[in-house]
Amino acid sequence: MKLAVRSEVAYRSDRGYPCTYVFNLAAANINAQQVEDESLLVDPDVSRDHYETDSLGNRLTRCQLADGGSLSVQYEAVVSVTHSSGIVADIEEVPPGRLPLSILPYTYPSRYCQSDRLMRMAQSEFGRMEPGFTRVLAICDWIYRRVDYLSGTTNAHTSAFETATERQGVCRDFAHLGIAFCRALNIPARFVSAYALELQPQDFHAVFEAYLGGRWWLFDPTRLVPLDGLVRIGTGRDAADIAFATIWGVAETTMQSVSVRRLDGERSEWDGSPVSVDVTPHRGA
Amino acid sequence: MKLAVRSEVAYRSDRGYPCTYVFNLAAANINAQQVEDESLLVDPDVSRDHYETDSLGNRLTRCQLADGGSLSVQYEAVVSVTHSSGIVADIEEVPPGRLPLSILPYTYPSRYCQSDRLMRMAQSEFGRMEPGFTRVLAICDWIYRRVDYLSGTTNAHTSAFETATERQGVCRDFAHLGIAFCRALNIPARFVSAYALELQPQDFHAVFEAYLGGRWWLFDPTRLVPLDGLVRIGTGRDAADIAFATIWGVAETTMQSVSVRRLDGERSEWDGSPVSVDVTPHRGA
Amino acid sequence: MKLAVRSEVAYRSDRGYPCTYVFNLAAANINAQQVEDESLLVDPDVSRDHYETDSLGNRLTRCQLADGGSLSVQYEAVVSVTHSSGIVADIEEVPPGRLPLSILPYTYPSRYCQSDRLMRMAQSEFGRMEPGFTRVLAICDWIYRRVDYLSGTTNAHTSAFETATERQGVCRDFAHLGIAFCRALNIPARFVSAYALELQPQDFHAVFEAYLGGRWWLFDPTRLVPLDGLVRIGTGRDAADIAFATIWGVAETTMQSVSVRRLDGERSEWDGSPVSVDVTPHRGA
Amino acid sequence: MKLAVRSEVAYRSDRGYPCTYVFNLAAANINAQQVEDESLLVDPDVSRDHYETDSLGNRLTRCQLADGGSLSVQYEAVVSVTHSSGIVADIEEVPPGRLPLSILPYTYPSRYCQSDRLMRMAQSEFGRMEPGFTRVLAICDWIYRRVDYLSGTTNAHTSAFETATERQGVCRDFAHLGIAFCRALNIPARFVSAYALELQPQDFHAVFEAYLGGRWWLFDPTRLVPLDGLVRIGTGRDAADIAFATIWGVAETTMQSVSVRRLDGERSEWDGSPVSVDVTPHRGA
Repeated sequence: MKLAVRSEVAYRSDRGYPCTYVFNLAAANINAQQVEDESLLVDPDVSRDHYETDSLGNRLTRCQLADGGSLSVQYEAVVSVTHSSGIVADIEEVPPGRLPLSILPYTYPSRYCQSDRLMRMAQSEFGRMEPGFTRVLAICDWIYRRVDYLSGTTNAHTSAFETATERQGVCRDFAHLGIAFCRALNIPARFVSAYALELQPQDFHAVFEAYLGGRWWLFDPTRLVPLDGLVRIGTGRDAADIAFATIWGVAETTMQSVSVRRLDGERSEWDGSPVSVDVTPHRGA
Repeated sequence: MKLAVRSEVAYRSDRGYPCTYVFNLAAANINAQQVEDESLLVDPDVSRDHYETDSLGNRLTRCQLADGGSLSVQYEAVVSVTHSSGIVADIEEVPPGRLPLSILPYTYPSRYCQSDRLMRMAQSEFGRMEPGFTRVLAICDWIYRRVDYLSGTTNAHTSAFETATERQGVCRDFAHLGIAFCRALNIPARFVSAYALELQPQDFHAVFEAYLGGRWWLFDPTRLVPLDGLVRIGTGRDAADIAFATIWGVAETTMQSVSVRRLDGERSEWDGSPVSVDVTPHRGA
Repeated sequence: MKLAVRSEVAYRSDRGYPCTYVFNLAAANINAQQVEDESLLVDPDVSRDHYETDSLGNRLTRCQLADGGSLSVQYEAVVSVTHSSGIVADIEEVPPGRLPLSILPYTYPSRYCQSDRLMRMAQSEFGRMEPGFTRVLAICDWIYRRVDYLSGTTNAHTSAFETATERQGVCRDFAHLGIAFCRALNIPARFVSAYALELQPQDFHAVFEAYLGGRWWLFDPTRLVPLDGLVRIGTGRDAADIAFATIWGVAETTMQSVSVRRLDGERSEWDGSPVSVDVTPHRGA
Repeated sequence: MKLAVRSEVAYRSDRGYPCTYVFNLAAANINAQQVEDESLLVDPDVSRDHYETDSLGNRLTRCQLADGGSLSVQYEAVVSVTHSSGIVADIEEVPPGRLPLSILPYTYPSRYCQSDRLMRMAQSEFGRMEPGFTRVLAICDWIYRRVDYLSGTTNAHTSAFETATERQGVCRDFAHLGIAFCRALNIPARFVSAYALELQPQDFHAVFEAYLGGRWWLFDPTRLVPLDGLVRIGTGRDAADIAFATIWGVAETTMQSVSVRRLDGERSEWDGSPVSVDVTPHRGA
């Protein structure tokens, strides 16, 4: 599927104070994504540098405003995305003894996913279920049914421990809770930020990945978008790793807009079957 | 039912430092309880004073050790307790508009029962149930099934907000969570400490009361004891109000023992039907 | 000092759903306050009932909208307030062994003032200071200097435990932290809501009282208003006890306005000396 | 300095249940450490595999007990450690705009170091200090003076947000709070576990590293050990990344012992000057 994505973010900070921004807006550099016609415009045209995380393909851009003021960043790209499907019944949990050791950190608790404090809750709710893909689906279903999707009720400090009881939030909170429950059951899980086709209203989106049957599978407890229409931006332990913008200094957001459309104008035909993408970073691009 | 109760608590504090204790060990002064042959021994025989809370019949004793050292307190009493039963189907929730205004504070959040933060969870779990006594029974059942009774896993700081996710605790934590869920559903609820017949191992116990159909009904989410075999000690918003011992100064508990027995040697014949006791304080005793 | 106070609050709830409100807007019925020309208008003219808390003089009004819709409440009064002054050096802390037992509950932790969790912090910051009025002033000074007064950063769930580290909030949060620190040092403390002369912008205000030298003294860590220009509305353990409006049902605030002025047009001449008011409720008024 | 280190840990789990352990006990594979005569004994002699994290030199060993039971692991090594010293006045903070982008994640909040929630506290306590090495020393000094080192008061769930107010803990909690304050001031910081010479009683130790002047410097807010006598075990964002033992399954610790001694029998002559070690992993070892 070929998608055109576009985002624009703008900030204002006080004159006379330096402000450093790191943006994570570009399509990730992974095998599942072929990027064409990409541009990243920064206004004013300040000095910047770029960085790609080794193993995950996240692409960061740092901008410095030595003297504060306004900054806007506009990203545009055309991206071809591919994915693999799977058969639910075939996708099994991997016991801790057979997990690749490099994947273990995705079973550890993180800032927004305190799986260590949700062990008993996860056991009580999901512990007696059949292990495998359907158990992670049951986690997503639980979240979908019991947490209300409500903009403006949570903020950048809200974590899964709170969402487990406060039962409200946005896509980011839904993903964090899904990740925390998975890890509490020894299922490696991680956070994925993305441009998402058919998200209404258009905005950045967050979903999660769980490691099952030897690969990473995508899950969206919000049920807001088709999983085959995602352009991945970043992959991390949780939102702390892959904020769209990380700011050192005091700045105010003055605008944020996102658009995603399919170039052939069609809607996704995703039928709900498992979706996995090849997250190996491109080499020698 | 006539019960003999006995408790002994002992503390040690450093010599040279004053230490003030307030004990809440005596059977409450309420109509449902006729106290006979009561004694409260304090060793050493320090100065003390007594106080009864106006409307709840809680009886406090304050002891002062001007120079620290050891202190032991032994309470013994024979108490006749009576209660009323009810028919589950008849006991209805009272809408907020018809609650006596003096009872409203029992719908407010308190230190260990943050009902304000559990609103959506209570709605999600119990909001669509038929209101009334059976809904509070469902709350108790939920707690019984999903929270593990485990000594030593919680402490004096643990509150319902944590227990809702961490899913472990003792009678005090079970009662706090029951209270918090009730209040989150606008059902007034409060904490009751008691001597409890047939509790194994013998110890102080905690249950809760919910206000339904115009009176207070007892509930025990631990299911550890018959509700007709309680000698009430204190009634409060939560455990902060009616600690067995409140200590100003640094002291270490060196012993705590409780015994409760029925004077005719019989076991309770409680059949599980609703239990309410007349909590009006005795006057002019 | 004679003050004219006025407040107006309005709400909207969905038609077809009952909504019950309890308002605590009227000047408290205490000896320090003589109320003249008082009116409480409710529009529409729904059924209501009134209640005064026994020992504190708080005055509650409950309104019921059986069928939802809009509600506005307007309170006006002219109140003469008197107070006592004291000499800082004379006002001593009362050791726990000599506190009136009825005052002990104001040393317990409460929903928004988790003094049990702030013991060591209070000891570390204030434990070596000379006990007495100046120590409570030091607490207020600490809060004033280290917590930023910022509207919109906290909400109805924010408690002293959070404010101790997050260091931002409004008058309510400042008062909660002051109360929690006092209690952690065994100084009884409680929450006071009030109409406040010279508060800019005009709004409801919150301060706290600490029990020292045998009476309650007022403290305002925000330093926003003179302490002799307060018309007390409510007294409680914390904001949970004396919300301006407690609502059962789903309603949205559509307006809130407050005005306070001195009838002789003068400003307060308060010189910063200790202020205590006679909080004994009027009898037989 | 040449040190002999030894640790032994043992666990027991129920027969019939699988249990997987990952141990992080071995001296890290970094340029500053030359390991000689190393051995890792596992009893019983179960299947195991080894893994070294790419960029940090952490060495993990996974053991599987398919059928539960007892397990003990004994690690011994002789390690030569070297370090660089620095001059306090020369070691400056690196502005965010000049930080290597690969180091940015050490400014993000993590499970036990919620720097996002401690921003204002860090600003209030340390924001006006001169940036640089002395500011991090001031953070350590603050922690040393205001947090009580008390075994058994905290557990595996305790995080910096709590320690900031509860003011008690062990080396792990001290390090987490130091890290959180640094990150809140934009100073990259990370967790280091180690064998520590002269630690009384002997045990595993935790300190932290801050990135200043282009390299990582060691800090120990507990002041319990000389910083030149550490044999590094692991480096991570916080303790979640480098637990000595991570266990999947239910197991009980039955023993834990550590010993560290200097082979020439001397004590450290560390004079308190800044200590930095070359953490580049050995290649081709």
